[in-house]
Amino acid sequence: MHLDLLLKQMSFIHEIDKLKYIFRKSKLFSSDRHENDSEHSWHLAIMAIVLAEHANEPVDLLKVLKMLLIHDIVEIDAGDVFLFDSVARQNNAVAEARAAERIFGLLPESQAAELIAIWEEFEAAETAESLFARAIDNLEPLLQNISNNGGTWEEFSVSYEKVIEKKIVIKYGSQTLWDFTEKLLQESHKNGILKKEEELRKCMDCMGGYTQEELDNL
Amino acid sequence: MHLDLLLKQMSFIHEIDKLKYIFRKSKLFSSDRHENDSEHSWHLAIMAIVLAEHANEPVDLLKVLKMLLIHDIVEIDAGDVFLFDSVARQNNAVAEARAAERIFGLLPESQAAELIAIWEEFEAAETAESLFARAIDNLEPLLQNISNNGGTWEEFSVSYEKVIEKKIVIKYGSQTLWDFTEKLLQESHKNGILKKEEELRKCMDCMGGYTQEELDNL
Repeated sequence: MHLDLLLKQMSFIHEIDKLKYIFRKSKLFSSDRHENDSEHSWHLAIMAIVLAEHANEPVDLLKVLKMLLIHDIVEIDAGDVFLFDSVARQNNAVAEARAAERIFGLLPESQAAELIAIWEEFEAAETAESLFARAIDNLEPLLQNISNNGGTWEEFSVSYEKVIEKKIVIKYGSQTLWDFTEKLLQESHKNGILKKEEELRKCMDCMGGYTQEELDNL
Repeated sequence: MHLDLLLKQMSFIHEIDKLKYIFRKSKLFSSDRHENDSEHSWHLAIMAIVLAEHANEPVDLLKVLKMLLIHDIVEIDAGDVFLFDSVARQNNAVAEARAAERIFGLLPESQAAELIAIWEEFEAAETAESLFARAIDNLEPLLQNISNNGGTWEEFSVSYEKVIEKKIVIKYGSQTLWDFTEKLLQESHKNGILKKEEELRKCMDCMGGYTQEELDNL
């Protein structure tokens, strides 16, 4: 029995249980319960299996699944940062790299190196696999917001234009999913659950107590 | 855009969100919070990635991941049944098959057929992939019970012998993981968090209010 190897692997398996306590801004579909990172990662993995045919380029699905299953593990140490909070996202990069070293570092050396490399590939967003994985990662909360009558868009007064600016990454992974997303966003605007910037400026009630400066930084 | 295809896929993606509300008997590591099926499936998928080298035969990891990610989706309709409740498990098989038809049936035909086939392969437990996937599925709650000072063993007065009888499936997927499991179970007995049948019979306090007949049926 490879006891030393197994003990390292078990130590990692225990540690990542903590991802079940990291809550996201987004809520479950048609729900007011926040989603945790492990639930989110599971959902993305299934989405990737089901939607793989829509990737812009053929992808190595096994690598995409590994990426999606592990991509948020760094948040055990570094926490969840809201997509629309650009300043915090930049500051968090160092903490996330450190977290990757510590948590994947619990594994035997070659496995740690493999998972860190996969996580870095996801972060760099250059390969077909990482572009598709990021498309999926961006699609799920958007579907959740629509099912929740605006969800975090409503809660944090995020404008239609800002959503387009951030979610355009879906296009780089899948033109088909982007075409579909654009239609969903247009419908959301028509239904009043996603407002354009001009409408938000006019509507102080929609600003959730944020000042204009804070809003501009979101 | 393949709108009809996408709408079916999105309908499935929405539906499986319900797995986040299906709670298992087992609790998170070192915790008194019950685990839900989506958290469980995520954890198993990562365990499979990390432990694949210990499978008795080389496995197609992509297929193992698909199995583990979808294996509990039928519980959205059929509910979670405790491993040690043999009667309920048998009765539940028909409900699960019907659930597979309904839920995977939301997908486009060829995808539905693929996922039902993968689920059936997992259930049949004959191929290298399904045997390894089942080993992993059986290992996680065992690790959780140990971290929870006996967990469901203690709660439902499950004996050492019964655990061995049920968990032997780990051996069919991975001799290495089984050797490790046996050591863990021996230690658990030594530490008093897993009792032998004879000890349970002597210890009425440990029977959690169950009659001897109920205990025999567990």
